[in-house]
Amino acid sequence: MSSPDPSVTVHRRRNPLTGRHVLVSPHRTQRPWQGAQEAVDDARLPAHDPGCYLCAGNTRANGQRNPDYRGSFVFTNDFAALQPTAGDAPATNDPLLQAQPVAGECRVVCFSPDHGKTLPELDPAALRGVVQAWMEQSADMGRRHRWVQVFENKGAAMGCSNPHPHGQVWGLDQWPDEAALEDLHQREHLAANGEPLLVQYARAELAAGERVVVETAHWLAVVPYWAAWPFETLLVPKAHTLRLDALTGVQADDLAVAVRRLTTRYDNLFRCSFPYSMGWHGAPHEAGRADDMRLSHWQLHAHFYPPLLRSATVRKFMVGFEMLGEAQRDLTPEAAAQRLRDVSDTTHYRTRAA
Amino acid sequence: MSSPDPSVTVHRRRNPLTGRHVLVSPHRTQRPWQGAQEAVDDARLPAHDPGCYLCAGNTRANGQRNPDYRGSFVFTNDFAALQPTAGDAPATNDPLLQAQPVAGECRVVCFSPDHGKTLPELDPAALRGVVQAWMEQSADMGRRHRWVQVFENKGAAMGCSNPHPHGQVWGLDQWPDEAALEDLHQREHLAANGEPLLVQYARAELAAGERVVVETAHWLAVVPYWAAWPFETLLVPKAHTLRLDALTGVQADDLAVAVRRLTTRYDNLFRCSFPYSMGWHGAPHEAGRADDMRLSHWQLHAHFYPPLLRSATVRKFMVGFEMLGEAQRDLTPEAAAQRLRDVSDTTHYRTRAA
Ligand SMILES: O=P(O)(O)O[C@H]1O[C@H](CO)[C@@H](O)[C@H](O)[C@H]1O
Ligand SMILES: O=P(O)(O)O[C@H]1O[C@H](CO)[C@@H](O)[C@H](O)[C@H]1O
Repeated sequence: MSSPDPSVTVHRRRNPLTGRHVLVSPHRTQRPWQGAQEAVDDARLPAHDPGCYLCAGNTRANGQRNPDYRGSFVFTNDFAALQPTAGDAPATNDPLLQAQPVAGECRVVCFSPDHGKTLPELDPAALRGVVQAWMEQSADMGRRHRWVQVFENKGAAMGCSNPHPHGQVWGLDQWPDEAALEDLHQREHLAANGEPLLVQYARAELAAGERVVVETAHWLAVVPYWAAWPFETLLVPKAHTLRLDALTGVQADDLAVAVRRLTTRYDNLFRCSFPYSMGWHGAPHEAGRADDMRLSHWQLHAHFYPPLLRSATVRKFMVGFEMLGEAQRDLTPEAAAQRLRDVSDTTHYRTRAA
Repeated sequence: MSSPDPSVTVHRRRNPLTGRHVLVSPHRTQRPWQGAQEAVDDARLPAHDPGCYLCAGNTRANGQRNPDYRGSFVFTNDFAALQPTAGDAPATNDPLLQAQPVAGECRVVCFSPDHGKTLPELDPAALRGVVQAWMEQSADMGRRHRWVQVFENKGAAMGCSNPHPHGQVWGLDQWPDEAALEDLHQREHLAANGEPLLVQYARAELAAGERVVVETAHWLAVVPYWAAWPFETLLVPKAHTLRLDALTGVQADDLAVAVRRLTTRYDNLFRCSFPYSMGWHGAPHEAGRADDMRLSHWQLHAHFYPPLLRSATVRKFMVGFEMLGEAQRDLTPEAAAQRLRDVSDTTHYRTRAA
């Protein structure tokens, strides 16, 4: 894999949502790789697996039996990292040892009863159902929690412990670090520029075109100018929209189309079920307070963070310099976007092969 | 693996060096794991591998032949992410698309000619030689670069592409994100408290004892109160010391002892060659300027970030909620420190077995 523009020299780019940087070293894709190889994820799984604790009708670890669900199915995580009642944080007198209690809730969202179909392989109605589940969870969890994190870990490479297509929703009574950072930078941008950061950014990317991966009537997916992961994307609505639960029916219908097209490109890139962590960021829910006006600097968006770099088996490792210094990437975001545009966004490679 | 203190409830802790948080969910270690398994790294490698491009006398990718080195051996990375002359950063007129050129240098440090011996297995003189190489590289690279990042990626799980024990040194003409963040927080702490952050912290940890993993005459290794990775440690000198190249001979001798004891504990924990990324942070080198006075908020320290969680094959994945929200851990730092103290810091499990 060579960079399409070898004249691009080493530089850093700034992520305006977080203030973090990424070091871009385009010439480095030429280096040989003798390190770890991932297993290729291209298994065709059965529609029902009797041993899967997420399949309809099966029994989970806590002894409960899943209903014979048809669309999506949401339940409270049996091993939740957050619990509804905050305990006491460990008490210390030392200002360097600061702790605070946290209360929250963790749910699992099975995307469909079909054990073998990931997002791009679901039929359109089922994928629209996943969008609906995201919206409903955002609204429901937002009634009790200040921050609702909707996300999906996909593939063993991303720590997913069950291949049944599913995501998670964590609600908590505090803003996690990424939320606080994005709030700050979006707030400052609106104050300085009179327009929400990501609304302005989406307009610039549509005009430039070179980082666009998918454009639908209401949505835009780009490899952001500051992408840290090789094929990272940012998915944003074209209209200013605060949260998942504020999407109109038309935006929601079109989101299902955009997600299908983006994840089809991902799977087609290396002809494998493309691993990633993805999740939604939007205006916090300030439990009952009528403060949407004070949150208009927020623009809803999803981040897709996929680890693969060169092939279905060779990933990028964010280690060493990345953990101690800052993110580093080996191909430009523009080259990554071009490679994603070069594969089909309509025909999934498995459909073709079948 | 159960938490030794099940009464500890979910809470967040704050990292005063970076301002970031970690969500601590001690009860969560009970959940079953059906996800990815790492390969156990317990291979006994030969002292010389004719196919290894880091072994003495062998030829590298660029055709150069390594000398018949005896101690450590340093050379410029053949596939360096940084290059000595900064080019032009991509020009844009858009304030949301910010880039800047970067110049720098990447070197590889082979720890010893022995292909099969990692840090805890080196004889004391050879390990002292690695400390000397770190100090010399810090001084030498610091003459040309504002930031010198000395680090080691160890093990295939941490993206290491060659098992020959080696580290890296990257020098660059800008402060990477982590450097800037730690600079800010240490600077503010000194101004507010009259004492460098990590000098004060080390004193508190020595007094408390519960997070101490290794203590020598001049060094302290703790699982920091805010550790994100399960068995993360922070290694600091007891005396206020700005940088690696400022270590006295006595501190350097004792550092070799501390590193041996810490990495022996790591390897003994799961009886495997314990993977990690480690690296040094210290006062920036402001190329020739006599500004050490303005940098006295810095205290030299090393971070060890090891990925393993439950066993030699089950790691922690920093994905999903961690990427979109904030770090999350499943056992308390206090429990992790106890487990590390419970294994020998003098006899390496391979020595015992041999
Ligand atoms: O330089 P190496 O060992 O080839 O590569 C490794 O370390 C680098 C510096 O931490 C990372 O950028 C790479 O992702 C990793 O695979
Ligand atoms: O909740 P799961 O799928 O068991 O676990 C996975 O996702 C969590 C949330 O991102 C992470 O904390 C875990 O490290 C990961 O293995």
